[in-house]
Amino acid sequence: MSALAGLALDFASVRRALRDGASVEQLVSESLRRVRSAAGDGVFLAIADEAAVRSAARAVEDRRASGAAQPLAGLAVSVKDNIHVAGLPTTSNCSAIDLRPEHSAHAVAKLEAAGAVVVAKNTLDQFATGLNGTRSREPLCRNAVNPAYIPGGSSSGSAVAVARGLVSFAIGTDTGGSGRVPAACNGVVGVKPTLGLVSGRGLLYNSRLFDTLSVFAASSAEAYEALETMAGHDPDDPFSREDADAIDLTPSGDGTGVLATILPDQLRFFGDRAAAAAYEADLAALRTAGFRLKEIDFSPFQEAGRLVFGSAFVAERLVEYGAVLERDPAAVHPAVRSAIEPGAGHTAKDAFEAIYALAALKRRAQAALAGADALVVPTVPTIFTIDDLLEEPLSRNTIMGSYTYFANPLDLCAVAAPGNGRSDGLPSSVCFLARATKDATLRGLAGRFEAAVAGAVPASRSP
Amino acid sequence: MSALAGLALDFASVRRALRDGASVEQLVSESLRRVRSAAGDGVFLAIADEAAVRSAARAVEDRRASGAAQPLAGLAVSVKDNIHVAGLPTTSNCSAIDLRPEHSAHAVAKLEAAGAVVVAKNTLDQFATGLNGTRSREPLCRNAVNPAYIPGGSSSGSAVAVARGLVSFAIGTDTGGSGRVPAACNGVVGVKPTLGLVSGRGLLYNSRLFDTLSVFAASSAEAYEALETMAGHDPDDPFSREDADAIDLTPSGDGTGVLATILPDQLRFFGDRAAAAAYEADLAALRTAGFRLKEIDFSPFQEAGRLVFGSAFVAERLVEYGAVLERDPAAVHPAVRSAIEPGAGHTAKDAFEAIYALAALKRRAQAALAGADALVVPTVPTIFTIDDLLEEPLSRNTIMGSYTYFANPLDLCAVAAPGNGRSDGLPSSVCFLARATKDATLRGLAGRFEAAVAGAVPASRSP
Repeated sequence: MSALAGLALDFASVRRALRDGASVEQLVSESLRRVRSAAGDGVFLAIADEAAVRSAARAVEDRRASGAAQPLAGLAVSVKDNIHVAGLPTTSNCSAIDLRPEHSAHAVAKLEAAGAVVVAKNTLDQFATGLNGTRSREPLCRNAVNPAYIPGGSSSGSAVAVARGLVSFAIGTDTGGSGRVPAACNGVVGVKPTLGLVSGRGLLYNSRLFDTLSVFAASSAEAYEALETMAGHDPDDPFSREDADAIDLTPSGDGTGVLATILPDQLRFFGDRAAAAAYEADLAALRTAGFRLKEIDFSPFQEAGRLVFGSAFVAERLVEYGAVLERDPAAVHPAVRSAIEPGAGHTAKDAFEAIYALAALKRRAQAALAGADALVVPTVPTIFTIDDLLEEPLSRNTIMGSYTYFANPLDLCAVAAPGNGRSDGLPSSVCFLARATKDATLRGLAGRFEAAVAGAVPASRSP
Repeated sequence: MSALAGLALDFASVRRALRDGASVEQLVSESLRRVRSAAGDGVFLAIADEAAVRSAARAVEDRRASGAAQPLAGLAVSVKDNIHVAGLPTTSNCSAIDLRPEHSAHAVAKLEAAGAVVVAKNTLDQFATGLNGTRSREPLCRNAVNPAYIPGGSSSGSAVAVARGLVSFAIGTDTGGSGRVPAACNGVVGVKPTLGLVSGRGLLYNSRLFDTLSVFAASSAEAYEALETMAGHDPDDPFSREDADAIDLTPSGDGTGVLATILPDQLRFFGDRAAAAAYEADLAALRTAGFRLKEIDFSPFQEAGRLVFGSAFVAERLVEYGAVLERDPAAVHPAVRSAIEPGAGHTAKDAFEAIYALAALKRRAQAALAGADALVVPTVPTIFTIDDLLEEPLSRNTIMGSYTYFANPLDLCAVAAPGNGRSDGLPSSVCFLARATKDATLRGLAGRFEAAVAGAVPASRSP
């Protein structure tokens, strides 16, 4: 039994252990040990070799010894399996895909260069198409707080690995909420940065226009620290923002701003009273912290979400995954198939009309947000049990995206942060959203929200 | 015979006449008289009523008298017939379209509010689809300098009306060169602003993503003055740039910058030696004026042009014009039909793949332009006779776009300015292009180029 067996793997604890004499190799090996002990839980699709992890850790030690800055030294990270990590297969959770990338994704390589060590690949709803975590093979990944419940998706494994304290942080992706919904379900922070702030090179694209890498961590401070390492312009990614290097991520704001909220008659929890009550309590915490809440019309946001997940935009999925669907349809999960196949029925004219309609909605949404520092919504309206979700795998998946689908289509950045928690012990979560490049505003907001609520980190975080 | 019959209608001459006692009504009536005298020349598709013109002119006088700024007072303008002008029909040069707009296009209304009076609607290649001027009904609009030659398109009438001195300036549109090619063919200036700098509201869209209104005038100073009036954010146009009000149009630069030019082996004039020689002379003028020329790889620009006019992007045309094509195919010019119909054969997946490919080309083009203030190209490689063009109406139309197609897809702004002229008496023209929002750089460049060349304004400008 390692001397580190009881250590929480959050950034501060790891750094304290490092200062107290633990080696990088010991720390990441401890994470690997935990990951291996969870190998049968459906959280990981691949686990790194111990030799490779130890060797990467020693390389970090060597770079430190030679004076190189290794700010993420000692931190173990796991990466969603639609993102390339050198030395591990990429499958996007499909038996017909088995890529062996030579290089890690651009942003993962930046983390590695800063001292983080990748210990595993996280499970996901196949092709990152889903928000619930059941679009997978057995064993299904289960909610970290209550295993009867869904972990959320599509970055299920990334959120659960953090929530269970198996890794220090994890990388996911977010198109329609995949970086926020699982954060909400498992009581961790999920940062979905401005589109193009983090390079998408080395990702199997779901929607090239609306995909971004995302970060899961126990706190917003940790998640944004990892994001700062990943962020920056990548001249080889055509969708990388040209001003990515100039976007300041220093947290800003002072807790006295205006937050837009959804008009009460547009707010739905689908019968989940515990969710509604928790959301009220979380908003109350924001009011107490000094924020002014201002109700706005949510309809342009709703319409943008519906448009992008129910129109010609769906055809984007066929660019990366259409060939697999044709070649080996049995390898594609039925729910994923029914989400992707309609894309083939749309013409180029449909696509351009959808693009025009989205541009108009973006303008309406921006007008609705004028005068507010950010929009705050419940990250999810409810959390289904796995049984309930499997009973209605399509409509209940859509419900999970009620407050997330619109963000990337409307070019908003977002952060989901755990709130006061629900009366049934499940986590609550609010999501702050702001216009592209305003990530620092959200960083400040999330930090102040975390300070305002208590007991948001589920007890299960420490093993 | 009016006392103003000999007056050139350029801005300076009109203003001098105003100071010397001419009324706005007299000045715009003189333009209307000239427009009417050209009524049989295929330049105009509709001419304003004399009563309406006189009444608009008196309204300008009244506003001046009451102290309102009317900077464009006395200037007559004609407008391409795919743009709405209240009181005149909009047809896009198609017998199956006869719209009677209640309001002028947003940007035209701004010109009217500043004192300009619309005297006519200009002919165009039908649906603004063409770069030659023959995709029209008889009588065909002819080149203002030599009537055997094409006027260029699609804004044929707008350029010819200015070149013949019938109006002070004219409004066109530009998707693939329609605001630059006719300027080059007729020896006037054509300004194609940054996409979204001028509202597109009130335009029949050809390509909503890549359309912009454009300006034709005798000089760049006049064209940019009109542009300054038209520019600005329009919250009701989803493709209006949000920073449009912040873009400074004051001419900048000092004539010592670096201009990117096309590598010699990528430069083609399709056998037109007079064009090649004139281009050399125009470049020499720039060198003499102090600019350093730097050859760059033109291939990303060429590829972007080919992509957008030979891929799923063509389906954008079907959004506005698809219904006419279905309802009344005989009303659509055969060459326009063959340009638009292929759009129907593309899927939504094709559209997204084309969008991704364009994003990659944009990155390559930006890299090629790094370190240069602007790109300078011959606006057109040659000018065909009408007979030659009609002999090969598709391939020779494509040749006309050799140096224009790429600008809007790559989000560049542009200005075409007349050069030293060709040995056969036809005009020469160079086009300066720069990244979006750099219109002021181009304004400065065009002004210095005009100062450097002599005899660029064809004699035909004054009646």
